[in-house]
Amino acid sequence: MGSIPTPATMMEKKRILTGDRPTGKLHIGHLMGSLLNRVKLQDEYEQFVLVANVQALTDNFDNPGKVRESIYELLCDYYAVGIDFEKTTVFIQSEVKQIHEIFVYLSNFVTIQQIGHNPTIKTELAQKGMEQSTPLGFFMYPVHQVADILSVNADLVPVGKDQLPMIESTRDLARKFNTTYDVEVLHEPEALVGVEKNVPGIDGNEKMGKSLNNAIYLADDEKILREKVFKVYTDPNRIRATDPGTVEGNIAFAYHDLFNSNREEVLSLKEKYRKGTVGDVEVKEKLFIAMNSVLAPIREKRMEAEKIKEELMSKALEGSKKVSNEAEKIVNKMKSAMKINFYEK
Amino acid sequence: MGSIPTPATMMEKKRILTGDRPTGKLHIGHLMGSLLNRVKLQDEYEQFVLVANVQALTDNFDNPGKVRESIYELLCDYYAVGIDFEKTTVFIQSEVKQIHEIFVYLSNFVTIQQIGHNPTIKTELAQKGMEQSTPLGFFMYPVHQVADILSVNADLVPVGKDQLPMIESTRDLARKFNTTYDVEVLHEPEALVGVEKNVPGIDGNEKMGKSLNNAIYLADDEKILREKVFKVYTDPNRIRATDPGTVEGNIAFAYHDLFNSNREEVLSLKEKYRKGTVGDVEVKEKLFIAMNSVLAPIREKRMEAEKIKEELMSKALEGSKKVSNEAEKIVNKMKSAMKINFYEK
Repeated sequence: MGSIPTPATMMEKKRILTGDRPTGKLHIGHLMGSLLNRVKLQDEYEQFVLVANVQALTDNFDNPGKVRESIYELLCDYYAVGIDFEKTTVFIQSEVKQIHEIFVYLSNFVTIQQIGHNPTIKTELAQKGMEQSTPLGFFMYPVHQVADILSVNADLVPVGKDQLPMIESTRDLARKFNTTYDVEVLHEPEALVGVEKNVPGIDGNEKMGKSLNNAIYLADDEKILREKVFKVYTDPNRIRATDPGTVEGNIAFAYHDLFNSNREEVLSLKEKYRKGTVGDVEVKEKLFIAMNSVLAPIREKRMEAEKIKEELMSKALEGSKKVSNEAEKIVNKMKSAMKINFYEK
Repeated sequence: MGSIPTPATMMEKKRILTGDRPTGKLHIGHLMGSLLNRVKLQDEYEQFVLVANVQALTDNFDNPGKVRESIYELLCDYYAVGIDFEKTTVFIQSEVKQIHEIFVYLSNFVTIQQIGHNPTIKTELAQKGMEQSTPLGFFMYPVHQVADILSVNADLVPVGKDQLPMIESTRDLARKFNTTYDVEVLHEPEALVGVEKNVPGIDGNEKMGKSLNNAIYLADDEKILREKVFKVYTDPNRIRATDPGTVEGNIAFAYHDLFNSNREEVLSLKEKYRKGTVGDVEVKEKLFIAMNSVLAPIREKRMEAEKIKEELMSKALEGSKKVSNEAEKIVNKMKSAMKINFYEK
């Protein structure tokens, strides 16, 4: 007799981990870049979403109120876009002490010289003017991030191309630990690349960000959305609506491509724009309608979320307990490998 | 009516923290330097003794068997010298995860440049040839040590003069945390300096140490003790017993001063030695008798300890739970200060 094949539906789902640093409300860059993706992934995978508040505190330690506020904003944003707190385990980093413990044990397998050469750390230190005065907490956070990933035994981590080195570090540290102690304790995750879409800022900047002051937030009301849409960067060389215009690098059209599901309308607008037979006002009016049709339901659900935010927090705290229990198993295995699991029979 | 005065015996005892890295058996340097002192302190203070196994792993991560073995050796040494596991709370660092958590929160208040300028770290990096390749775990351990001290709310830490900067760092970090969040959460400890005696190595080296191969261990049996005593560095310029000898820098006399309670005998031996009327053999024979009378009861109790070492471990694990509960209170206060105590009412 052959073995009974396991039905696909009964196979264990792969674990996927994503997360955000709570340093502000989420915007349409997050929506298109990761949030909608998570809504899809939560059915296919066992999904974990980390609210990285300890990491947020590394460069906001003197503004804890902002971090706390942002945690609630994140939870509301998640709920608003359709992340289902029953399907997805949302958890708060500060409630899983095992992450710190795993981090400390991993710290023996990475040198400060390696961290110093990390391009992300180099860039961020330069941006923040921290080269001469680098808080240890900030410096060590790439390793702490590795501990986040390993603490949930993640199989997959959706990342942008610029974050691939982080996954490589994770795999590397997991391997070093396993090899040193000749065990199979830490699980090497794979990167899930290329599913994320980039959304430029309303000012034409390649990136949308709070500090760049060029973001459209999920929490923005209709009036603000309209104002921001009418401010988006278009073709600076076009003076009159009858001048032929450029569509490439034109943020109004970039957003049309991302938000307007009426592809015919978009094609026709682009054609007319190039010929100089449609004005910016009409393009933006239609853009507003398209974006609002995507964002209005989110906005509505977000208002609902605001009313139940303590309930969402309770779910995130439950999720944290679940992750903490899982991470404890990993910690115990690490401690066994290091011969310091004194409770082991 | 005046307030009822609290009887001195009912006043809360001050908390004192000491500890050791489990990297080998303890020797007479530890005995005179700190162990006997701890035996005295355990009545006067609420004493905590930390077995710093996580720190021992930072530079012994590839030799966990040695660290584990050394934990048991430490516990036996403690018991042998008279540390009472009921009076003193012996605890194991890896069983108090809150230390890692406190460490992570403190890491925002110290820069890597400050750590790099720490003289102890500089010296140790040079000794271990780690300047070009410094494991993060090793680099961050001065801050992790601060977390040890703060995790038990220590009032006093007995230290050698060379460790005073560590206490200064602890006070500094505690103050920075308290000031940033405008709270009184972390307790600034005081150093207790000058109670420790230095014991030179049998080879005349100022320090006694395992790596220097010049130590007399508490676990050494009588035969080995005798051999080592007869090897101690005396006066290299003295050829014959009738030559006048030098007492200063002569390890046999240094040990006589430390171990021989018969002060008259010591004075008389010194006088004769200077005149050339006593031989090295007699000086050492008497030294052996004096040292053995101190070390024999310890050795005997140590053999007893070997038989109950699992029981000693159980007590240390109980102690760890106690410390973990105390540290959890501090963590919760720190989290409240940072506005991330989500369970706070």
